[in-house]
Amino acid sequence: MNSSAADGSTIKDIGEFGLIDQLRTHIGANPQVLMGSGDDAAHVATKDGTYVVSTDLLVEGRHFRRDWSTAHDIGRKAAACNLSDINAMGGVATALTVGFAAPADLPVAWALDMIRGFEVECAHVGAHIVGGDVTESDKIVIAVTAIGDAPRPVPRSGALPGDVVAYAGDLGLAGAGFAALSRGFRSPKKAVDAHRTPHPPYAAGPQAAGAGATSMTDISDGLLADLAHIASASGVAIDLDRATFAIPEPVMTVAEALGRDALDFVLTGGDDYALVATFSSETTLPEGWTRIGLVSDGSGVTVDGAPFEGVTGHEHFR
Amino acid sequence: MNSSAADGSTIKDIGEFGLIDQLRTHIGANPQVLMGSGDDAAHVATKDGTYVVSTDLLVEGRHFRRDWSTAHDIGRKAAACNLSDINAMGGVATALTVGFAAPADLPVAWALDMIRGFEVECAHVGAHIVGGDVTESDKIVIAVTAIGDAPRPVPRSGALPGDVVAYAGDLGLAGAGFAALSRGFRSPKKAVDAHRTPHPPYAAGPQAAGAGATSMTDISDGLLADLAHIASASGVAIDLDRATFAIPEPVMTVAEALGRDALDFVLTGGDDYALVATFSSETTLPEGWTRIGLVSDGSGVTVDGAPFEGVTGHEHFR
Repeated sequence: MNSSAADGSTIKDIGEFGLIDQLRTHIGANPQVLMGSGDDAAHVATKDGTYVVSTDLLVEGRHFRRDWSTAHDIGRKAAACNLSDINAMGGVATALTVGFAAPADLPVAWALDMIRGFEVECAHVGAHIVGGDVTESDKIVIAVTAIGDAPRPVPRSGALPGDVVAYAGDLGLAGAGFAALSRGFRSPKKAVDAHRTPHPPYAAGPQAAGAGATSMTDISDGLLADLAHIASASGVAIDLDRATFAIPEPVMTVAEALGRDALDFVLTGGDDYALVATFSSETTLPEGWTRIGLVSDGSGVTVDGAPFEGVTGHEHFR
Repeated sequence: MNSSAADGSTIKDIGEFGLIDQLRTHIGANPQVLMGSGDDAAHVATKDGTYVVSTDLLVEGRHFRRDWSTAHDIGRKAAACNLSDINAMGGVATALTVGFAAPADLPVAWALDMIRGFEVECAHVGAHIVGGDVTESDKIVIAVTAIGDAPRPVPRSGALPGDVVAYAGDLGLAGAGFAALSRGFRSPKKAVDAHRTPHPPYAAGPQAAGAGATSMTDISDGLLADLAHIASASGVAIDLDRATFAIPEPVMTVAEALGRDALDFVLTGGDDYALVATFSSETTLPEGWTRIGLVSDGSGVTVDGAPFEGVTGHEHFR
């Protein structure tokens, strides 16, 4: 983990987050970026206003499989994970660009179904595709950049001791669906569908910003992993209350079938694109938000006062 | 060329531009896009202003080779081709996002050199990297989105009969460099360097917009191919005057060594990211712009009144 470029280390040696850290330190400070590196989206000043912007790369075989998901589902999910980054800033996405690299023998119909999936998902927030690029590659790569408006952008770094922790959206469903698909199952449908097309709580981001959320992020790598980013960026400790989590029925089903702890999916499952945020203890939580823990002095994320066993998240390059 | 998705055709059957056309027709009209699809960048309205945005995907082995170019050069070129799209709208790029997919065994030093290359190129226009994403893939893929300000965006569609055609920047240098490298040569240096790190005329785009250019595009696929987009979008014919082109010395050298027509590189070579624009005949061309032809009623692009033999450009997926 302490490797640096000078010792000939590879991306595998330092991991995805290690590489991001090193790239960040090589990018100078920028007065136009009002809030940026280390948040879900950057908040950037223009001549006549501001916008928030985020980008994601989805690679076939790593972020999606053509035998598990339709082109339409893959387009929806590619859009969703980017719209979610804007949601996690408390903003609303307005414009997407889509870069699409694909094998030359890909049916045109597949690409068109994918774009329709983008449109269906974008319609949830009123965003539109405004530009794109197409090229050839061995495997499909989808590069999405989302741009939006955020009147009051919420960073990861604002959580304060005494704040309450709350989430909105699904937890564990997509992770359970992924686990089921990995074992060759095609059910339970609600979990498998959640893996194929997550349902980010698009209203919840702007509502939390409006209610004065002190920090926020979306849950792409797992609740504990993403909360760890808030704890680290804010310089606080976070403790979750196990009893506050209602485990969704399909997650129970998958956990029982695979002999796993259902809470493991809820706490470490990724790709649901739920939101987790912190609020002052006096704040009335907006509808759809559920209180699950507390912020205090210190560092790290615990469950009922202890580290949660089996925290995995899912970092790339490992 | 008349294939459609319904007949089971593949991307190879309809080509890159065919796929882009079909994707476009599947994306509905959008009141936020003031000017977009079919231009070098989209001009988008926000709550409190406007921006221009463009995106490009670069794939290893297709857009760059690690044995031909350093990581620094590849970063510079990836930045340049995106900054050029904003330049071609008459704008100035302010922010870039960079998605980076790479094999896990890639040295960290390579990624850092690439990012330094981005920064060096961005410094030419005062732009900064504001966000990014990192993931794993078999081959390196670099996805760049550039966002900028354009007080008076110049489309491809505004050329009028009677306008003069002019260009700014290098023509044929990068194409000659590519041809030389393809034959195993490492010289002439100026041409090979132009392939590795093109020098877009960043001042020329805003100057042309300020001077009232009626249409503009950058030259990524070759002068004739990109002028054909202006002719088509504007519904006009364009004729170039062969005698107006000064052939750069390194292009002559490569043409002689390979037994090719030097003018072929100038008219069909890509990747120099020069600009070509049209202006009213009364306009005094800004410094750095050279008059090369005339716009008239009709369609298509000719040289001295006749189609140019050996027009190739370089479309992908072929």
